[in-house]
Amino acid sequence: MAAVYLAGVGMTKFGKSSQTLIGLLREAATRALSASPVQDVDALYIGAMNPEEFTGESNIAAQVADALGLSGLPALRVETASSAGAAALHTACQAVASGYYRHVLVLGGEKMTHLSTSAATRILAEVIERQERQCGATMPALAAMITERYRKRYRLSHSELERILSLVAMKNHLNGSHNPFAQFQKPITEETYLSSKLVSTPLRLYDCSPMTDGAAAVVVTAEKTDLFVSGIGQGTGPVGLRERESFTCFRATQAAAERAYQMAGISPKEIDFAEVHDAFTPFEIISTEDLGFFPAGKGWQAVEEGKTSMDGPLPINPSGGLKARGHPIGATGVAQIVEVALRMRGEGQVKLKREPKRALAQSTGGLGANNLVTILERSNGVQVENHWTPAPPRPRPKRKAKAAERAPSEEGKIETFTMLYVTPDGFLPPLALALIRDRSGQLIMAQGEDVSHLKIGREVYLRQLGGGYVFTVKSQLRTVREALKKLLRRVPSPADRNESKRGRKESP
Amino acid sequence: MAAVYLAGVGMTKFGKSSQTLIGLLREAATRALSASPVQDVDALYIGAMNPEEFTGESNIAAQVADALGLSGLPALRVETASSAGAAALHTACQAVASGYYRHVLVLGGEKMTHLSTSAATRILAEVIERQERQCGATMPALAAMITERYRKRYRLSHSELERILSLVAMKNHLNGSHNPFAQFQKPITEETYLSSKLVSTPLRLYDCSPMTDGAAAVVVTAEKTDLFVSGIGQGTGPVGLRERESFTCFRATQAAAERAYQMAGISPKEIDFAEVHDAFTPFEIISTEDLGFFPAGKGWQAVEEGKTSMDGPLPINPSGGLKARGHPIGATGVAQIVEVALRMRGEGQVKLKREPKRALAQSTGGLGANNLVTILERSNGVQVENHWTPAPPRPRPKRKAKAAERAPSEEGKIETFTMLYVTPDGFLPPLALALIRDRSGQLIMAQGEDVSHLKIGREVYLRQLGGGYVFTVKSQLRTVREALKKLLRRVPSPADRNESKRGRKESP
Repeated sequence: MAAVYLAGVGMTKFGKSSQTLIGLLREAATRALSASPVQDVDALYIGAMNPEEFTGESNIAAQVADALGLSGLPALRVETASSAGAAALHTACQAVASGYYRHVLVLGGEKMTHLSTSAATRILAEVIERQERQCGATMPALAAMITERYRKRYRLSHSELERILSLVAMKNHLNGSHNPFAQFQKPITEETYLSSKLVSTPLRLYDCSPMTDGAAAVVVTAEKTDLFVSGIGQGTGPVGLRERESFTCFRATQAAAERAYQMAGISPKEIDFAEVHDAFTPFEIISTEDLGFFPAGKGWQAVEEGKTSMDGPLPINPSGGLKARGHPIGATGVAQIVEVALRMRGEGQVKLKREPKRALAQSTGGLGANNLVTILERSNGVQVENHWTPAPPRPRPKRKAKAAERAPSEEGKIETFTMLYVTPDGFLPPLALALIRDRSGQLIMAQGEDVSHLKIGREVYLRQLGGGYVFTVKSQLRTVREALKKLLRRVPSPADRNESKRGRKESP
Repeated sequence: MAAVYLAGVGMTKFGKSSQTLIGLLREAATRALSASPVQDVDALYIGAMNPEEFTGESNIAAQVADALGLSGLPALRVETASSAGAAALHTACQAVASGYYRHVLVLGGEKMTHLSTSAATRILAEVIERQERQCGATMPALAAMITERYRKRYRLSHSELERILSLVAMKNHLNGSHNPFAQFQKPITEETYLSSKLVSTPLRLYDCSPMTDGAAAVVVTAEKTDLFVSGIGQGTGPVGLRERESFTCFRATQAAAERAYQMAGISPKEIDFAEVHDAFTPFEIISTEDLGFFPAGKGWQAVEEGKTSMDGPLPINPSGGLKARGHPIGATGVAQIVEVALRMRGEGQVKLKREPKRALAQSTGGLGANNLVTILERSNGVQVENHWTPAPPRPRPKRKAKAAERAPSEEGKIETFTMLYVTPDGFLPPLALALIRDRSGQLIMAQGEDVSHLKIGREVYLRQLGGGYVFTVKSQLRTVREALKKLLRRVPSPADRNESKRGRKESP
């Protein structure tokens, strides 16, 4: 009885649009409703990250109801940074499962391309932890630092990493070339990838999702349709990179996936294809590991072996993903559901080799800090049970006070780093950024005085400058000298010995 | 089984605070959890209107989870303009009723006082429809125009209105004087009220809720406690004043109340006291009518007769309301629930004369565009049934395309007006603002060239200037001359008669 089904879905073409945000949302809603057996919805749930700063408009939920000629109906906005659309979907599913509403229209949208890249980047950077943001860290910079760490941890050479990332970009652009809703509908070659500019080492332009306008909409309902929402899960992780235990996975995705699989009563093996939040190409790889599709550190191999291609056993991002379909922030989480539904229904131009039974969508908020997983299944012939029961008790995070900020020690070593070429206003490129682990084990984001000799594990001096921190790489010569000096201090000099002997003699 | 109960509640003192928004939310959460039989919550649902622009922080949900040491748990933000806190509560109730979560911590908060009044006013004004905003309309200006219309419709003299508004302000400040969480804890006299400056005629400073910092938190749970959520309802209305059928009521409140009463299975008569969104004193009066406590146009009489005072039959805003408790936007909807729970449990310093069984909280988003109603009841001895069933089908708003903007005609008449003394940046005070109904029946917000002769029903000339419209009141002499001229045109002149006679003769 409490199952939640998916009725009509629809989206705008993603890309640069002359429409307003409200206009885009109206277009997507009209498409979803006209494709829906359910026309009269009870409420509107809208995902949008930051319409206030992107468009200067607030009160978006009432405005959308107005624009759809549905003023009077309950309407609200849900926000979890870049996964806002997925969060709107999940709350709407809860509302339908509770019995309070029978049919909810879920919308997601964002309008960004009318702003300059630096203005949009500034707004997007607000999701970043303050200390990291103050150093000039942007989303691509932080993603790059995670990528460098992944490369190091799984022992990939620079050229191996480059080739793997290019394979992800090429796969998603190839997939996007068949998708009429995609922002980019052209395949790219390895040469195109390699000749694209470096945004933040090792990430190039073709590793990063673009600025996009767009909207998407789906109707969730208590009335039986061909598809149902069999699992939903959400998890958070620390906002700051420097608060994390691991840089090569997203705990938030792992927690979200665990709950969604548990609710659906399935294992990752039973997923036929997935839409994954590839805001950056390496994040697609990490996410396929977090979702349990591949073991940790093996996601890159799956790409290399073509496992995630359209003709592989587990197609990832048949739509082209954020990379090629585009990433109008609040729209993305809903667009993934639209894309999954189209594939499962065999509609649209993108076709899968085999008829899928189950698919998954994964959405990421901020730098992997607020992630959601949704599992959709065919309901044909499937006995849909009540999945809306609480998860069995499991260890919950114990509330603990956040450690107070301490001044870092004056020395430390590089945990990960990047050279940022597309810098925020007020920062000259190239900007060397590194996460430094100080002597007490605390992590600090700092700007480099040197732009060479950057390497994970390298020793640095650390000092405060203005509101932030600056690091200087100890030269290798200097490091050797210091190590020798330290050794020297351990070996007592003959003079010292004589001193201490004399001392002993003189004592009574 | 699906009933939703209220466990611990807590809030910060409202007022000017040196804490950050996150700090305020943490304080409120800690209080609610420490007062709660349920300590381990499954998720965080947060109401905040615009932390991005008020504090420069985005990604608030993950940040709050971090700050509470609960990183890992699902966390999301809900927004419906100034009713965001109530919307977070309602979605959390739906999540618990669905069975997906057992316990949800609901938070609401906003940090505003660190900004200048003009900066904060600009952010708050983003909830206003664009054409109205472009003329310089602020929230107090629009509230003032509604008030003037109410006065005219219910035949109150200027001095009668002034006295009634002062009674609301004095009542709420008296109530606030007993509330340790209130921003203002001193009663005010009629003299204080009357000597306060005019913000926007007829509204004075003491008619408007203040800028406030603060946060509030409640735990909603599937486990039985002494209080349960027996009814929730939400409704929207047109964002623009000029799109509305009525200026003297809020359809959004009426729709929200209807659903909440229906769900609780009660009538307005069964409510023992209520917290009502008195962002402006006249809105308290209008809301008590919309909620069905008093007939339309009789709310002012109830105030006069003391019916809404602490010793009256239906105390309204025992906490002091937004007026005296303060209005940290996103916090208010949750704070109302905290206040209601404290009164129902007989906790805190504010005491009711009689032990209440049922209470109601009403929250307003924007200018009455997104409103929510919550009903709380004692569960002691009450058989709590499953209320979470969809509302029976009723006429839904039919989707209709919004009428395209037409250029207004050159003449019209004043539907309502105000003189705004606290103007937004770029507008010189005093600013005459009026809603003009043009000859085709369309409503247009316009600035007045004259600041005198303003009166509902008066004829004006209307012309476009820059991006907006300007009106000029036709002088009474001119209006009389024009009326006479019109009459004159209806009376054929002797010459005309001769002409026509001659004409007739000449025709074959």
